Amino acid sequence: MELVISRKILLSGMQTVQRAVAARTTLPILSNILMEARDGILKLFATDLEIRIECEVPAEVKENGIITVPAKLLQELVNNFSSEEMYLKTDEEKQILSISCGEGNYRLNTLTAEEYPSLPEVKKGINLKFSSSLLKDMIKSTIFAAAPSTESRVVLTGVFFEVKEDKLTLVATNAHRLVVKIGEIKKVKEGISKILPTKALQEVSRLIQDEEEVDILISEKQVKFTLKNSLIYSRCIEGQFPPYQQVIPSSIPKITWKVKSADILSSTKRVSSIAKEDTNVVRLRTIDNKLSIEALTQDVGFGQETVNIEKKGEDIEIAFNAEYLLDFLQKAESEILVFELNAPETATVIKPQDEENYFYVIMPIKPV
Amino acid sequence: MELVISRKILLSGMQTVQRAVAARTTLPILSNILMEARDGILKLFATDLEIRIECEVPAEVKENGIITVPAKLLQELVNNFSSEEMYLKTDEEKQILSISCGEGNYRLNTLTAEEYPSLPEVKKGINLKFSSSLLKDMIKSTIFAAAPSTESRVVLTGVFFEVKEDKLTLVATNAHRLVVKIGEIKKVKEGISKILPTKALQEVSRLIQDEEEVDILISEKQVKFTLKNSLIYSRCIEGQFPPYQQVIPSSIPKITWKVKSADILSSTKRVSSIAKEDTNVVRLRTIDNKLSIEALTQDVGFGQETVNIEKKGEDIEIAFNAEYLLDFLQKAESEILVFELNAPETATVIKPQDEENYFYVIMPIKPV
Repeated sequence: MELVISRKILLSGMQTVQRAVAARTTLPILSNILMEARDGILKLFATDLEIRIECEVPAEVKENGIITVPAKLLQELVNNFSSEEMYLKTDEEKQILSISCGEGNYRLNTLTAEEYPSLPEVKKGINLKFSSSLLKDMIKSTIFAAAPSTESRVVLTGVFFEVKEDKLTLVATNAHRLVVKIGEIKKVKEGISKILPTKALQEVSRLIQDEEEVDILISEKQVKFTLKNSLIYSRCIEGQFPPYQQVIPSSIPKITWKVKSADILSSTKRVSSIAKEDTNVVRLRTIDNKLSIEALTQDVGFGQETVNIEKKGEDIEIAFNAEYLLDFLQKAESEILVFELNAPETATVIKPQDEENYFYVIMPIKPV
Repeated sequence: MELVISRKILLSGMQTVQRAVAARTTLPILSNILMEARDGILKLFATDLEIRIECEVPAEVKENGIITVPAKLLQELVNNFSSEEMYLKTDEEKQILSISCGEGNYRLNTLTAEEYPSLPEVKKGINLKFSSSLLKDMIKSTIFAAAPSTESRVVLTGVFFEVKEDKLTLVATNAHRLVVKIGEIKKVKEGISKILPTKALQEVSRLIQDEEEVDILISEKQVKFTLKNSLIYSRCIEGQFPPYQQVIPSSIPKITWKVKSADILSSTKRVSSIAKEDTNVVRLRTIDNKLSIEALTQDVGFGQETVNIEKKGEDIEIAFNAEYLLDFLQKAESEILVFELNAPETATVIKPQDEENYFYVIMPIKPV
């Protein structure tokens, strides 16, 4: 491999793939980035065996070739060089990559590309095309609600991704709260539903730039996102997503509150300063058109805030995990939020006013 | 205690003292902040038993009193309140501080002020007065070179602080490198030399604002800095500072290099990306007016940069700890640096060109 490349271009390519470089790994080659130079193009690859990101950047390729190099070290160097033109050449026998930039000369130890693990290609599958701004928005609106990667029920660590007729639906839950976002798409002939890892979706959302559309190829076990400057591969999560429809209250709610987002967000945040010192529980209590948000802990004391609401139905007292409540209050980009409640022990729905395609279902905490 | 106070004023007071709140402590009250309200003034105190910071802020005091409150929790609340006027009242019997701000009401558990440990007052001592910009600059130019707090030779964890006639001298060393900064002051009658903890100096440097002068009172074992809005107390470090004068080469150097700061800084930074993967050693080698900076490691490879220098004397090869070299290159605010060398195994001096009052002495690493 021998090539001349712009430092800025190489840096942007490395930044594209670096999140797929394995952070902690028992397989040293996964800390490397795979570089393949061919006919005016340098391809960069990184994988942590869960997802893979690929990216192509233009280069003046003098000799085709393929090699793997320590990702973090190379990125640090490329980031710190002060000249703009870089020269790269491999010595395949000695397994060395020589780099020259400005007055600097580096020889990095490499590992051969043959040892680099490959994810199987996504060949056949259903091909979809979505508006990238829609997809990015839908991902951001939902991934926060999935269970953390430490969760034993693996299906909850992903986002349920369903395409049906003219609707794309994303659902995420950690079994205590659930978020649903529905987007309108061009009608598809064949629907599909899969559970996709949050890491892959996070990278798709991060790497969407100014392209208009994102191509998605979904096979039985894998998914491929084609962006303007990158490809993201990921395994699908196997298993059955919980029947989330059953959790969503279907009858007309007995009680509704309309509340200013900014008011309830800032009040809940302050009260949660108290709540988090203990079991992280906040109690919500209404008296006419006042909502009182309260936390009481043994150790640090008591906090209480009052927020004006527009209420229909009876007064109620209900308790939530403060963190789960805040998660949605921070995401919902709407001036007014609507709370739909039935009883202190049943699920509450929160949604932006005048929005039917985005809502949050949160289970209350039983009073002790 | 009962008072009304501006939220912004209370917040700025808390930010002033918070660095002295003990981060990890076996004495729970050290996580608290001491508040004393008296005659239109709220005094705030925090200590980790090594340093103490005090600060006064104006308040509408309705009833004098004194109490201690969890510092982190109170600061979080004060930071997040959206109204600007706060009402605070203690219930001494129940040991509770009630806070009202906007629509929020909080009751925080407190600990009585009697349990709060006090540092002995600095009463008698030598009184000094320095320009605050001079002091701030001198602290920033030196503290980085002291040994970390984990160092067993405690005297090296502080900064040597010497006042003699019309000179203030600050010296810091970790036994492998040494920095000296001399400032001109009004001639004093009585000189003094002490070792001051870096934490106290760091706080002085942080809290100096637009005041012109800083008052310093130094007693046998303690020091007090009086700033415009705060007081900083600290113990002095006991013991003998190493005879640093002996380390500073006194003869005319055999070799000098003049080099652009920006060039040697960026080159050393890049080469250190390689060096830090191993023993962190960089070798500097001259050939006529070229300086080559090199690092060779078993694991990752080799890096080499060339920098133009203006040289007097013979060519030489010398090795340094890359981190210690970078520490000074990053601090020295001068376009040109001068290196003064004698031999590969003796101390090298680095100083900004045309600057006699600031220099760095770095011990080379013996070639293996």
